[in-house]
Amino acid sequence: MKLWEKGTKLDKEIEKFTIGNDYLADQELVEYDCIASIAHAKMLFKIGILKKSEVKKLEKELNAIIALNKKGKFALKQEDEDAHTKIENHLTLKLGALGEKIHTARSRNDQVLAALRLYSRDKLLDLRKKTALLIDALKKLAARNKNVKMPGYTHMRKAMPSSVSLWSGAFAESFGNTIKMLEFVSDFINQSPMGTAAGYGAPLEIDRKFTASLLKFGKIIENPLYAQNSRGKIESLILFAMSYITMDINKLATDLLLFSTEEFGYVKLPDKLVTGSSIMPHKKNPDALELLRAKSAVVDSYLFQIIGIAKSLPSGYNRDLQLTKEPLINGFKTTEECITVMILVISKISFDRERCEKAMTKELYATEEVYKLVKKGVPFREAYRIIGKKFVD
Amino acid sequence: MKLWEKGTKLDKEIEKFTIGNDYLADQELVEYDCIASIAHAKMLFKIGILKKSEVKKLEKELNAIIALNKKGKFALKQEDEDAHTKIENHLTLKLGALGEKIHTARSRNDQVLAALRLYSRDKLLDLRKKTALLIDALKKLAARNKNVKMPGYTHMRKAMPSSVSLWSGAFAESFGNTIKMLEFVSDFINQSPMGTAAGYGAPLEIDRKFTASLLKFGKIIENPLYAQNSRGKIESLILFAMSYITMDINKLATDLLLFSTEEFGYVKLPDKLVTGSSIMPHKKNPDALELLRAKSAVVDSYLFQIIGIAKSLPSGYNRDLQLTKEPLINGFKTTEECITVMILVISKISFDRERCEKAMTKELYATEEVYKLVKKGVPFREAYRIIGKKFVD
Amino acid sequence: MKLWEKGTKLDKEIEKFTIGNDYLADQELVEYDCIASIAHAKMLFKIGILKKSEVKKLEKELNAIIALNKKGKFALKQEDEDAHTKIENHLTLKLGALGEKIHTARSRNDQVLAALRLYSRDKLLDLRKKTALLIDALKKLAARNKNVKMPGYTHMRKAMPSSVSLWSGAFAESFGNTIKMLEFVSDFINQSPMGTAAGYGAPLEIDRKFTASLLKFGKIIENPLYAQNSRGKIESLILFAMSYITMDINKLATDLLLFSTEEFGYVKLPDKLVTGSSIMPHKKNPDALELLRAKSAVVDSYLFQIIGIAKSLPSGYNRDLQLTKEPLINGFKTTEECITVMILVISKISFDRERCEKAMTKELYATEEVYKLVKKGVPFREAYRIIGKKFVD
Amino acid sequence: MKLWEKGTKLDKEIEKFTIGNDYLADQELVEYDCIASIAHAKMLFKIGILKKSEVKKLEKELNAIIALNKKGKFALKQEDEDAHTKIENHLTLKLGALGEKIHTARSRNDQVLAALRLYSRDKLLDLRKKTALLIDALKKLAARNKNVKMPGYTHMRKAMPSSVSLWSGAFAESFGNTIKMLEFVSDFINQSPMGTAAGYGAPLEIDRKFTASLLKFGKIIENPLYAQNSRGKIESLILFAMSYITMDINKLATDLLLFSTEEFGYVKLPDKLVTGSSIMPHKKNPDALELLRAKSAVVDSYLFQIIGIAKSLPSGYNRDLQLTKEPLINGFKTTEECITVMILVISKISFDRERCEKAMTKELYATEEVYKLVKKGVPFREAYRIIGKKFVD
Repeated sequence: MKLWEKGTKLDKEIEKFTIGNDYLADQELVEYDCIASIAHAKMLFKIGILKKSEVKKLEKELNAIIALNKKGKFALKQEDEDAHTKIENHLTLKLGALGEKIHTARSRNDQVLAALRLYSRDKLLDLRKKTALLIDALKKLAARNKNVKMPGYTHMRKAMPSSVSLWSGAFAESFGNTIKMLEFVSDFINQSPMGTAAGYGAPLEIDRKFTASLLKFGKIIENPLYAQNSRGKIESLILFAMSYITMDINKLATDLLLFSTEEFGYVKLPDKLVTGSSIMPHKKNPDALELLRAKSAVVDSYLFQIIGIAKSLPSGYNRDLQLTKEPLINGFKTTEECITVMILVISKISFDRERCEKAMTKELYATEEVYKLVKKGVPFREAYRIIGKKFVD
Repeated sequence: MKLWEKGTKLDKEIEKFTIGNDYLADQELVEYDCIASIAHAKMLFKIGILKKSEVKKLEKELNAIIALNKKGKFALKQEDEDAHTKIENHLTLKLGALGEKIHTARSRNDQVLAALRLYSRDKLLDLRKKTALLIDALKKLAARNKNVKMPGYTHMRKAMPSSVSLWSGAFAESFGNTIKMLEFVSDFINQSPMGTAAGYGAPLEIDRKFTASLLKFGKIIENPLYAQNSRGKIESLILFAMSYITMDINKLATDLLLFSTEEFGYVKLPDKLVTGSSIMPHKKNPDALELLRAKSAVVDSYLFQIIGIAKSLPSGYNRDLQLTKEPLINGFKTTEECITVMILVISKISFDRERCEKAMTKELYATEEVYKLVKKGVPFREAYRIIGKKFVD
Repeated sequence: MKLWEKGTKLDKEIEKFTIGNDYLADQELVEYDCIASIAHAKMLFKIGILKKSEVKKLEKELNAIIALNKKGKFALKQEDEDAHTKIENHLTLKLGALGEKIHTARSRNDQVLAALRLYSRDKLLDLRKKTALLIDALKKLAARNKNVKMPGYTHMRKAMPSSVSLWSGAFAESFGNTIKMLEFVSDFINQSPMGTAAGYGAPLEIDRKFTASLLKFGKIIENPLYAQNSRGKIESLILFAMSYITMDINKLATDLLLFSTEEFGYVKLPDKLVTGSSIMPHKKNPDALELLRAKSAVVDSYLFQIIGIAKSLPSGYNRDLQLTKEPLINGFKTTEECITVMILVISKISFDRERCEKAMTKELYATEEVYKLVKKGVPFREAYRIIGKKFVD
Repeated sequence: MKLWEKGTKLDKEIEKFTIGNDYLADQELVEYDCIASIAHAKMLFKIGILKKSEVKKLEKELNAIIALNKKGKFALKQEDEDAHTKIENHLTLKLGALGEKIHTARSRNDQVLAALRLYSRDKLLDLRKKTALLIDALKKLAARNKNVKMPGYTHMRKAMPSSVSLWSGAFAESFGNTIKMLEFVSDFINQSPMGTAAGYGAPLEIDRKFTASLLKFGKIIENPLYAQNSRGKIESLILFAMSYITMDINKLATDLLLFSTEEFGYVKLPDKLVTGSSIMPHKKNPDALELLRAKSAVVDSYLFQIIGIAKSLPSGYNRDLQLTKEPLINGFKTTEECITVMILVISKISFDRERCEKAMTKELYATEEVYKLVKKGVPFREAYRIIGKKFVD
């Protein structure tokens, strides 16, 4: 039974439409809803709503759900509506009237908000760890190719001398900064919505700070309406951070696709990384790199989707916001997968030292020649013009 | 076995990443790939590559696949890679060497292009039919509420007299035009890519016009590279048309959400269309309308995703384009569902004649008063100023 | 004075904010508003509101404004608010009470709608002409490079033999189809909003079909509220068509940037098309091509902007829609400029026949070898495997 | 003369196209380029390239340019190409060969990067200050309306009791968090690119940390290629923060547009904030609020534009990135203006206490009734069902 059902039956088609894929997204949230519910029960005990023995029973049963879920034995179905309903129904089945008490001083609204923030905090930590591994892979690539020079480009034209480690180091430093961004995002969202109920609080004296501290939230969201209004917004911030990561992965892939063309020839992709063609027997196609390039647009589209959904909604919860769950969860999955695959690619590719060196043609040193004159006292712009004449066809 | 495999094994993680959800999207294309393959086989007979008996066997087996697929018994798995591979493997299993001949004079590239165009042509026809049903529903709503006047708004402020049929008719006329757009899109994409192979043709004299006519394509794409370069582009056109439809659905939902507030009170939503709250026992929430409003942003994000994926790719097939399948197919599903649910909503809602009439306050008639003066010969702007004075607080 | 002023003064900051850049965008619409006003005046005569002599005076003065505007002597300033206000004020200044009559049976709302549709119809025709010139340039490029073979690519890897004319022809065919899309868009928007006033008609018997025929509109918009609701939507359609054009320009530029690298070397950019670096005296940078590649994202952002602005607005005019003017007009300017510059680029570049031929290495012919076996009766997939073995490292 | 000119003339049309509106955007950067150039000159002295007297002359002349620019007397024209060229040319005109020395150990690339970061740091500080003022205005609004209750909504339906200060406080808390985000963004971008030249350093021993400390950068960007690759990315981060601000402004405007309808009637907009209609003499239109609602989509489109432009570019500077300047600068202008106008609106509006109170109907207290039962020991879900029955029609 749905938490809100009171007799009249919802049209079947409407029911299917309103639930949509929500139950699939909610599978990710089961664990976090249980964790938050345990903290909520402990707080209800602290303020005298539940007895100690009741909290123990609830805690045991909620931990049992977490365990079931990890084994894939708490699968949501469309008729369950969402994780919160299924969990409350499960508790009521197991614990009778006690299950009917757990919803005291909360609403599905703040449950969703809490579960999403706890889930995201965990996933952001995973992203930071993965990103650190990618930095390692880039540093190892540089170490494997110490002293390998290659041309540096601007405007896709040879510009000045560069090297594998300069190229690789650019991404390593960038990802290092991105980790700081992920930390900021994590802190930013780490505020407790527990107890804000449907955006207007609950008419009971509760101890929101206690619940927050149990869940290791940095602070509580003071204004209950703000808790609701933050929906969609924090998701957009998280997605932006993921867009930021995949922008770099897009650039890495773009570079590698170019460097591994026969024409450039700087990079070799091992056979384990390439696929073939159904018609051309000689082809070795860099599909993984192409998909890594493309996934950036996929992640961006999740960001746009969330922003678009949240646009022009009045204050307070609106059902539209339910749709932001899917792009959030898909965003995490896609970004994590992209980092994992990029780590693999970076670990397996090799640079062709010979081709790289051969490409170090003399125009790359034009600026150095200018500076030889500068060191002799020629003003920079004059030196530039003197050397420039050598390169007029 | 993959169509292109020649010994070396692809890294498992890379394999999983490159296949992704493609096999799920491809389920939609099985039927269309079979249809196109039958036409291709007939053409191969016409030019002397296959014997009549061979074509018969292939046609029979391909039709068997279509039948299996309709019963849900040709489900693609990740290890099948894609529909084309599974079908060719199935044919080879059933027909031996004959199955190995079907790929003559084609590539998976033009197979995908053909299947996508045939699939889209079908789905666009469905959308036209559904849209026509929505127009019907809107007309019936007007008929049910003949002579019900209601305020017309500009800037969300009462402007001039309107009516349920004026309001409803605005959407009916808009959807009527949209049907014309869908027809255009259908014609635009109805060009045969069959025989363009991997974008550079096949070194065989084939009869592309014959294949095209069997498949009822309006013409053939002349330039094989253009066939490849059209990938992502025609998908964006289709998605734009779906964005156009869902923009109207977004406006319909926005209006109905406003009109059905207690404060406006013009529209009543029957209980079958509303859901409840887990904390507030009195709530009747218009979730379906909110989701209809929000889905427009979802469809838009598919459009942006496709455009983003296709951006800055060089000519010829690039694997990035494979990712445009999912937003295309999801776009069709979402749009169809939105129209279906909107038809249901429009059929079930009622207008509150009393509340509508009560809202017909005198300022709505200010412009009529101006025109009474105009008819007596007062210049419009002067009449406007005379009546305007009545409304200064 | 503003058309709607009745005594109270608007806050200065609010006035500046609400007018924004609108007066700049409106400069483009002056001519079209005058043309529509002349038709409107003729209709007012037909239904007996204006005398013949009055229409003549109005027509003369409106033509005078068009002439002034062409000479740059009807420049809108921020205090003019918009084109419609300035024109009506100008007429009243010149013709007294007669100027105050022209607004009979219309609103600024339908004036804007009409001017925008007339303007867009004209600009779409310009785009069609320009696109046809670009097709010419592409065909001439093919003719200049008859018989120049070059590698065809898939996945950015050499695939099969191609040629300059195959490559160039792919774009020519694509732009040919795009011209058909532009024609459709032109027809789609060519419906008369004149007489729909503020979305609820005017309380006067007017002859909307007569006005429409004078302005060569294909038909009238029947439902006045639909006329208003179409705002933002037709702009999005137009922008989509421009996005479609610039997607191809993006691909053309992407190809040429790759082909003109030293490493590929197929294309030479003459000095007239390249710029230099402030620090590297040897550089010849393809800035124009890079900007042509990038402008596609600019045009797309106009499309997103329009869709975003129009999202979740209730029926009837909302001031938000005024902001769709700027991206529409900038879209036309950007797209026209891109086509113009691309024509110039295509006319000036040359292909390096020697480098192209040198690049025709043997793996490009692998598929041909497969087909030699196929012609001897070997099933395609078997022939593919035989030839494939030659290309295992 | 352009910094890179060496004889050949660029095609006029190409020149116009490549410069575009860049010279207009660059006006904003003149001051910051001068500031950075002074620091650069001091560093060149420190490492022995310039004499003390030379630095003094350069500093004096650069300060003179800043002063001229503040008076509007250093206006860039299209033929100036950009700020950096005009400044170097100006210095050379005034100081002869000394002007030709200032470009030593730098490139326009790192000049642009530095100027953009310094400019953005300043503008972000402005945004923080403005946002703080908006918080003040919201708090004053709450204070002016102490104890004014109003309905709280979910799903656009009355939910539970709320108040003006709860509503207003939700935005105040949100903007408070946004200020923290702006601080983060400011710190994130506050890294010195000075001395990274064109992305591959300069062949001179320079003291990058010294320059950075003079400009109060928090640290230097270590990897010169990363400095280049950060272009477009940091702009996207800044734009995201602005999107975050305008999302809240969009919601504030959406609420106020609803609350100020006659039907809701909670909010009164003074005449100074409303405009009229050209046809309906009674209208009082909330144009400013509508535009505030819409501008959010405009700012979002700048974000998408920047992300779109930067997508799929290989490492190192590409001219595409020049186009990110305009959306960045327009983003700052639009966001600042929105905050300013919203402060004005919030300061001028009033809540209608009577209408608010009248709207406090009994269903808003349904949840309180549930809790009365809960306090008596009835399990929550049971109490919910008991009270729920009262609200079945």
